[in-house]
Amino acid sequence: MNINAQWIVGFTDGEGCFHVGINTNKGMTLGFQVLPEFTVVQHQRDVKVLYALKDYFGCGVVRKNNGNVLCYRVRGQENLSMKIIPFFEKHRLKTSKQVNFRKFRKVIRMVERGEHLKPEGLDHIRKIKQLMNLK
Amino acid sequence: MNINAQWIVGFTDGEGCFHVGINTNKGMTLGFQVLPEFTVVQHQRDVKVLYALKDYFGCGVVRKNNGNVLCYRVRGQENLSMKIIPFFEKHRLKTSKQVNFRKFRKVIRMVERGEHLKPEGLDHIRKIKQLMNLK
Repeated sequence: MNINAQWIVGFTDGEGCFHVGINTNKGMTLGFQVLPEFTVVQHQRDVKVLYALKDYFGCGVVRKNNGNVLCYRVRGQENLSMKIIPFFEKHRLKTSKQVNFRKFRKVIRMVERGEHLKPEGLDHIRKIKQLMNLK
Repeated sequence: MNINAQWIVGFTDGEGCFHVGINTNKGMTLGFQVLPEFTVVQHQRDVKVLYALKDYFGCGVVRKNNGNVLCYRVRGQENLSMKIIPFFEKHRLKTSKQVNFRKFRKVIRMVERGEHLKPEGLDHIRKIKQLMNLK
């Protein structure tokens, strides 16, 4: 399947999600792991578009979510910093997902600088997260 | 707002809907009106993308749907036949919405030929409609 950058932007404006998880993890300095991820969810009948995204970005996984729903998911500092963020910087989202994207990028940059390992940095990330993906 | 064809295809693959309504209408020959429509629904915070679609296609309306949800809607044989269908013929959808689009186009063509005014044509349209937008 042939997809191009603007189709990906349009599809992400519709179906994409920039999410920051903060999970308890005793192995981490502060007891919490910051887990940013870019996801796109689809019914299994359209799994081919999820694999097309995976091919395009050259990273991420396609996994079963719930029932008949599958998810393309990109995690990992390098994938997000070097592939996902530069793509959406070059090809700007048209909906308010652009606002989430900017917050997501801010968190990625903070994690790059190790700020999530300090209490004030982690608090700052929590506050950014609260303002993301508001219904 | 600047949107291009591939963005529209991607966004429609995510958020668009090709729908055929069949409503009772005593003014019609068989007592039913066939009402095909192309719609895109968004939260009001992203109403600007709905107006961008309206500008791009040069037809349709942006209306309140429910609560904070708005809808870009194109009805009318001429708008659908001359604008919406040629656009998605030229710029093919990537998801299974392409299957719905083909069924939708078939209904539009039948209505063009007046087949919805004959009982067997209306029955055929009902059967096509049953196979559209399956969950």
